[in-house]
Amino acid sequence: MPLVVQKYGGSSVAGAERIKHVAGRIQRRAAAGDRVVAVVSAMGDTTDELIALAHRVTEHPQPREMDVLLSTGETQSSALLVMALHGLGVEAISLSGAQAGMRTDSVHRNARILAIEPARLRDELGRGRVVIVAGFQGLTESMDVATIGRGGSDTTAVAFAAALDARCEIFTDVDGVYTADPRVVADARKLQDITYEEMLELASKGAKVMAPRAVELGSVYNIPILVASSFEDEPGTLIHGGVDMEGFNRVRGIAHDLDVAKITIRQVPDRPGIAAEVFAPLADARLSVDTIVQNQSEGQLTDITFTIGKDDVDRALPLVRDVAEQIGARSADADERVGKVSIVGTGIQSAPGYAARMFKTMSDAGINIEIISTSEIRITCIIPEDRVADAVRALHRAFELEKAEAAELSG
Amino acid sequence: MPLVVQKYGGSSVAGAERIKHVAGRIQRRAAAGDRVVAVVSAMGDTTDELIALAHRVTEHPQPREMDVLLSTGETQSSALLVMALHGLGVEAISLSGAQAGMRTDSVHRNARILAIEPARLRDELGRGRVVIVAGFQGLTESMDVATIGRGGSDTTAVAFAAALDARCEIFTDVDGVYTADPRVVADARKLQDITYEEMLELASKGAKVMAPRAVELGSVYNIPILVASSFEDEPGTLIHGGVDMEGFNRVRGIAHDLDVAKITIRQVPDRPGIAAEVFAPLADARLSVDTIVQNQSEGQLTDITFTIGKDDVDRALPLVRDVAEQIGARSADADERVGKVSIVGTGIQSAPGYAARMFKTMSDAGINIEIISTSEIRITCIIPEDRVADAVRALHRAFELEKAEAAELSG
Repeated sequence: MPLVVQKYGGSSVAGAERIKHVAGRIQRRAAAGDRVVAVVSAMGDTTDELIALAHRVTEHPQPREMDVLLSTGETQSSALLVMALHGLGVEAISLSGAQAGMRTDSVHRNARILAIEPARLRDELGRGRVVIVAGFQGLTESMDVATIGRGGSDTTAVAFAAALDARCEIFTDVDGVYTADPRVVADARKLQDITYEEMLELASKGAKVMAPRAVELGSVYNIPILVASSFEDEPGTLIHGGVDMEGFNRVRGIAHDLDVAKITIRQVPDRPGIAAEVFAPLADARLSVDTIVQNQSEGQLTDITFTIGKDDVDRALPLVRDVAEQIGARSADADERVGKVSIVGTGIQSAPGYAARMFKTMSDAGINIEIISTSEIRITCIIPEDRVADAVRALHRAFELEKAEAAELSG
Repeated sequence: MPLVVQKYGGSSVAGAERIKHVAGRIQRRAAAGDRVVAVVSAMGDTTDELIALAHRVTEHPQPREMDVLLSTGETQSSALLVMALHGLGVEAISLSGAQAGMRTDSVHRNARILAIEPARLRDELGRGRVVIVAGFQGLTESMDVATIGRGGSDTTAVAFAAALDARCEIFTDVDGVYTADPRVVADARKLQDITYEEMLELASKGAKVMAPRAVELGSVYNIPILVASSFEDEPGTLIHGGVDMEGFNRVRGIAHDLDVAKITIRQVPDRPGIAAEVFAPLADARLSVDTIVQNQSEGQLTDITFTIGKDDVDRALPLVRDVAEQIGARSADADERVGKVSIVGTGIQSAPGYAARMFKTMSDAGINIEIISTSEIRITCIIPEDRVADAVRALHRAFELEKAEAAELSG
């Protein structure tokens, strides 16, 4: 019998009615002959509410205790989903992360998965039961609960799929991966499939379909992941590692992100080790820096520009100004009125013509490019925030993403 | 260093402010040189809300899954209380029932405690930490969570006090045990101390200060239990097993209960085994029967009367009528307009004069006694419901319970 590990997100289990709906989906899947493991998130806003409650109790809640508190959200969902399954006459059992065999390190709130020891899980499957696993949580060596950070339930599902050699299906409130954000581009098209790497680039902050960490884990273990809606029965998008013959050397989608600010340090003395000096204090403060570019300005001086989340500017700028003074730079300033737009597709950086067509499209639309950065499968421009939507629409049209791909037409 | 196991009930930890208040109390206690273990209940109405949610998901939630769901309430409280302690600079750690070493059988929702294995708890105490234990929950042999039923957090605290050879303090929303319900008798007096047996009689449904099961456990292990308010710094009442020299042969308090109904089966053939036939169907239906009396009526016929909770009448009466027909009794009827009043005190049944004074008091007040029953330390009358408050006040006066006891005057 085929084994599938499904994941149902917080909005899919928000309240008794939705939990019953999910139970119905699992019942049909089990009736069709599949063995089912389902990983669940906490109901709706439960996690946010628990975090708020903790902060009413103390300003800086200890991570270990936050994990004890937050893990109860997923535990509750798992028990309620099993009750709903019993209500439909389906044999099922809930397992906590610890019971299901999720072993993690002791970095509370952001633990790494060390191993999956699914003896009990296999045992329960062997008895013909559907197994509902509380996502996001594991057990440390000192027998404490630890949570595995953002996107924890997605990552839990992929990890169990890898450990059980099962298929993986992520059910969420979107129905797949699109060529661009459908709220921005009216004729954005759902992709039938996409590679892990392309997904990672598309699933930046601008296109939250699935946690990047879960996609990376899928990539490492080569687990195909289906992303689909928990509310509809549409096909969804398959994320996989195979070379996509038809899709290769094509732009697959347009990603964008409005949560971007730009910090520029002007007239930095250009000597070895200077970049390390600049970025060490930000790393110490656990501030995550995105695109970095360095342009020569005058003589032995250079300008360093990087991007950062808008919310982090208030913490980052004082640190950057301190370091600018120490190293003898002229000034450091932030600009929060910027955004990011990217074209994504395997091979597009090395293939000629894509970058040129992107820049021409922006130029034709009268959009000024402030920074350019590229990866193997992505070309990104930092542009004025108020032109990001225009840029996404222009690029979607320029690369003809509204048209079905050859593989889809023939498939 | 003295070791104390405290328990804080649901109303004591209902919300961030109350949790911080409890943390302050624990901080002062720890600063005074005591090692502290505190058992917590779920916040406020959390348990009731989770039960309601489960019933929205399915009509008959499975007990195992209810335990997974309900145990999250205490787990949340334990983590939040530790956060509040950290906020005050107190070293503390939360332990689930499983982590604290509570081992139970597998009767979900009503598990029995099999053992306390407090190795980790001792270890954390040894590191100078305050330990907060999630009450009401334990671990079964099959490594599942089980809850231990009504009054579970009280029972948890007494069990850990026994296992750790510690003092036990139950903090709740009442400040001790009174000679009668202060809402009924204006000059009811708080008792300094009381025996386990007297407490059990007083703590029937009429005077919910502490779970009877926890008192019984205290009695078995001879653990003195202090019951006091978590909101005030008043002394409270000590429940203990020692013979109370001054209190012996005295009425200690008046208990009453309005949740009583009376069922009478008339003209039952009086032959051996008849009582068993009558009560077996009620036991099978898990209906709890209280006082039972049997009076001869005419010739070889007898009347059997018993009391039961008012809510149980609708389930009990059809069963009783069936059995009445089978055994050839004349009729079976229920009367829900009755209540119960008791005088409680070690030795009062065997000492002369108490029963007589009780009956005289009722007679002087014009209250008709329908049923009388007695135990070693209690004399109970079933009377009309609308006279119960009058009876409590008259008895409180008759036995001079408003006056301080000799031990208190000299102590």
